[in-house]
Amino acid sequence: MLTNQTTYRVIYGDTDNMGMAYHANYLRWFEMGRAELFRAAGLSYKEIEENGIFLPVSQAHLKYLAPARYDDVIVIEATVDGKIKAGVKFEYRIFSQEEKLDLATGYTIHAFVNGDGRVIRPPAFIKALIDKHFRNKPTLAGDD
Amino acid sequence: MLTNQTTYRVIYGDTDNMGMAYHANYLRWFEMGRAELFRAAGLSYKEIEENGIFLPVSQAHLKYLAPARYDDVIVIEATVDGKIKAGVKFEYRIFSQEEKLDLATGYTIHAFVNGDGRVIRPPAFIKALIDKHFRNKPTLAGDD
Amino acid sequence: MLTNQTTYRVIYGDTDNMGMAYHANYLRWFEMGRAELFRAAGLSYKEIEENGIFLPVSQAHLKYLAPARYDDVIVIEATVDGKIKAGVKFEYRIFSQEEKLDLATGYTIHAFVNGDGRVIRPPAFIKALIDKHFRNKPTLAGDD
Amino acid sequence: MLTNQTTYRVIYGDTDNMGMAYHANYLRWFEMGRAELFRAAGLSYKEIEENGIFLPVSQAHLKYLAPARYDDVIVIEATVDGKIKAGVKFEYRIFSQEEKLDLATGYTIHAFVNGDGRVIRPPAFIKALIDKHFRNKPTLAGDD
Repeated sequence: MLTNQTTYRVIYGDTDNMGMAYHANYLRWFEMGRAELFRAAGLSYKEIEENGIFLPVSQAHLKYLAPARYDDVIVIEATVDGKIKAGVKFEYRIFSQEEKLDLATGYTIHAFVNGDGRVIRPPAFIKALIDKHFRNKPTLAGDD
Repeated sequence: MLTNQTTYRVIYGDTDNMGMAYHANYLRWFEMGRAELFRAAGLSYKEIEENGIFLPVSQAHLKYLAPARYDDVIVIEATVDGKIKAGVKFEYRIFSQEEKLDLATGYTIHAFVNGDGRVIRPPAFIKALIDKHFRNKPTLAGDD
Repeated sequence: MLTNQTTYRVIYGDTDNMGMAYHANYLRWFEMGRAELFRAAGLSYKEIEENGIFLPVSQAHLKYLAPARYDDVIVIEATVDGKIKAGVKFEYRIFSQEEKLDLATGYTIHAFVNGDGRVIRPPAFIKALIDKHFRNKPTLAGDD
Repeated sequence: MLTNQTTYRVIYGDTDNMGMAYHANYLRWFEMGRAELFRAAGLSYKEIEENGIFLPVSQAHLKYLAPARYDDVIVIEATVDGKIKAGVKFEYRIFSQEEKLDLATGYTIHAFVNGDGRVIRPPAFIKALIDKHFRNKPTLAGDD
């Protein structure tokens, strides 16, 4: 399972009139989590783009559980779904570092797109990257 | 059916490195659509808050169909689901004004919360507002 | 004098913990004002970029006079300084549509940059555009 | 001299169509620098607000020197001006961590405001906090 955690401190500019973080910011935080997950896996998203591959978001879902407040440190946990089909799916959980309180969960689905903006099949180097991290641990002989 | 359309022109600050509008902005645009829908129904969201009722987002879903680009005028169409249960659900469609191209669809679900941040049952004045717009048109005598 | 006014309604996503619009948003609103000023002058900023010219901000100044609040309609007034030197300067005034209360003033200075990111001299077509709007009104014979 | 450095990694959501960080984000980064400077001085801005004191921005100036790009780590250096008059002034320098390239400089000026939004004189506990960090180091006898 490929999972990574990164932290972020909520600033004034993230908050709104209700005294909590504005709900659209969670998509920015999902992006932070996803970027650090790529980096932890050994290939930054920037390097993927330098290979001419882009991963625009095709779908996003968010469930808000408790408000993040000004100056809270939040932990952004991102996981990639090992089964790459047309696109790749990331799952997220955001919780407060201090109270360990779940603030939001969600996922994003991304297409693979080339420099012309055309949807392409998952590139081999990305499949290899994800497979490497998901490859089954050595099992008993005959197990598969 | 309670539906409303409002427009917005994409600014530089909405775009990103890929030359399209950053995906988190669609949640801001959903908010614009929802606010204008309330206003069109005769009660602004600001007035709802002045009555001590808040509608934080509890869930959001977005499906990105085509990129919005710098300087595009987008049309934000918002609809409210007439069946209010614990919360209220809004549905959205964003399309480009010029090419009539669908850019995104999605929904948000909102809880009803009082000034103390406690989830409450749907307030009567909001149910009445939505019912008024969803009430069946006059029917033949005896029909109901 | 080349001046233009455009309006914007403050959304929840623009506000912060203090119950007013977050101060960074005024730079977005300056951008809106500047873009509509270009359009009113007959050439959108998008068309300028299509000519291979970019106008990144090299300097910005903001003076905050009174808070913009949620759901306020603000008027963004933008003016261009007719004397183009190395760059071009825009001046802004933002006020509330209802109370006619000044909320902020400021300016931005922009360099002219080509597609390679190199600073260039003001392109003739932009000088012509601005001159056209600043050209002295017909004067008495012999005056110039 | 009270100075502090903090870092931030530029995300996709910070960038724009020109492939660089959108200029309004620098005000968010100034805020990050200011908040960490307060924390380093021993009193977070959140605690200041809990004492009923708010420091809204009354003026801001930004000079953009070089673009910050996607995935760059930037260093935000913030300094407070020891001479508190009606308000307090912070100065900033943002540079790229890797190339040590100056990206922007600027300042913000803040009023002191109470819970009613009224401008007040600088509170004693804030003056004391800043004085403590600016007090002259012990000097040779007779030096002053």
